[in-house]
Amino acid sequence: MAKEDVLYQHGTLALLVPGLYYGTQSIADLLTHGDTGIGTADGLDGEMVILAGHAYQISGKGTVREMASDELTPFANVHFDQPTNDYDRQNISSADLEKEIFADHQFANQFFAIKIHGTFSHVQTRAIDKQKPPYPPLAEAAKSQHVFEKDDVTGTLIGYYSPDLYQGTTSAGFHVHFLDDDHTFGGHILAYALTEGKVSLQTFSDFNLHLPVYDSHFVQADLNDPELDKQIKAAEH
Amino acid sequence: MAKEDVLYQHGTLALLVPGLYYGTQSIADLLTHGDTGIGTADGLDGEMVILAGHAYQISGKGTVREMASDELTPFANVHFDQPTNDYDRQNISSADLEKEIFADHQFANQFFAIKIHGTFSHVQTRAIDKQKPPYPPLAEAAKSQHVFEKDDVTGTLIGYYSPDLYQGTTSAGFHVHFLDDDHTFGGHILAYALTEGKVSLQTFSDFNLHLPVYDSHFVQADLNDPELDKQIKAAEH
Repeated sequence: MAKEDVLYQHGTLALLVPGLYYGTQSIADLLTHGDTGIGTADGLDGEMVILAGHAYQISGKGTVREMASDELTPFANVHFDQPTNDYDRQNISSADLEKEIFADHQFANQFFAIKIHGTFSHVQTRAIDKQKPPYPPLAEAAKSQHVFEKDDVTGTLIGYYSPDLYQGTTSAGFHVHFLDDDHTFGGHILAYALTEGKVSLQTFSDFNLHLPVYDSHFVQADLNDPELDKQIKAAEH
Repeated sequence: MAKEDVLYQHGTLALLVPGLYYGTQSIADLLTHGDTGIGTADGLDGEMVILAGHAYQISGKGTVREMASDELTPFANVHFDQPTNDYDRQNISSADLEKEIFADHQFANQFFAIKIHGTFSHVQTRAIDKQKPPYPPLAEAAKSQHVFEKDDVTGTLIGYYSPDLYQGTTSAGFHVHFLDDDHTFGGHILAYALTEGKVSLQTFSDFNLHLPVYDSHFVQADLNDPELDKQIKAAEH
């Protein structure tokens, strides 16, 4: 397989659910597996957007900064950007755009990236404050999230779709982040509507799950939460 | 990561559940990703054991033969054999051996291979006959499985443990196959007890899921069976 066929993931989503927010992979290491993606930082410190080999952090205060190569992440997804499908789209809601993707492509059973660069009539994001050990569960940490909104904003939506089957390994369905072109606004997207932009999709034949097997918190954790699906949905949507 | 750190999987277990038994990867291609493993053949034709770079098929009739490089598999797991833990063990049941592994090692949250070469006081296996399209669901196909038993048999148990979290992607828990040294007996293991042998474990930091995204049956299938867990347990245990 070519490197563009691989979606790489550091960590499994289920480790965030009970509160394993310890950073276990450096940004430098992560970027060897892709130049584009999303994630979070050590301590669940905000939301991460990776574009063209640069990792940006949107903090709980809504500020944006580029992350250093030695900073750590507990959970992130990256891939090498080489879209398989590109098209322009105007005036569409997120719900209609998602429906259209599955009407036009037989992508329901595979992992793919979605990237939209353009102008959005509205983007609503959230970012979580850095947590302190002993870490609270994800659903509790998400309750203190900060919500940000901006109209007529130009920037990049980036994220992934994963089939329902992989819920727990990933946050199933669409999971997308945002960073504006000025690097003054972004976060984990709660809602958006597109005015005009280029939609780029990239399908993957391979999903490479990398686990922090040398991390003592990870190997000792109980990841079998019987309410995993509910916890993820409460925290991520 | 080193190649020995990767568990490679062709296909997702959920595709077998509704009956997607079409072979979608050649044995030659599969063996580029590992020299050791388990799987099944085109049409759910028996059980596969891969040892030292050779793929063997145990048919529904109980016969063993080496597979050709151009034969196809719908689902298989392979890795490059380089055990991380090796020890000798005598007179132990499968249940006690499994308990002992988790008592001795913090492996519950990771993928690992288990290989045991030795003499078994008892091995009970099953193998499924080749199915014909339109393929029946896995739970139905498994009903016509053939069960084989042998006492005091010398051979190799090979397979994997995957955490509960990955049920549907894999068959969670232990999933092990057997091939005797004479190549006259084997299959998917239903029960075993060890007289004396070497137990080899190999942990993986990376799980590489490879999906048949160019197969029309796969991309069109509905893989969201609400009773997935139940169907897998009915068919695989």
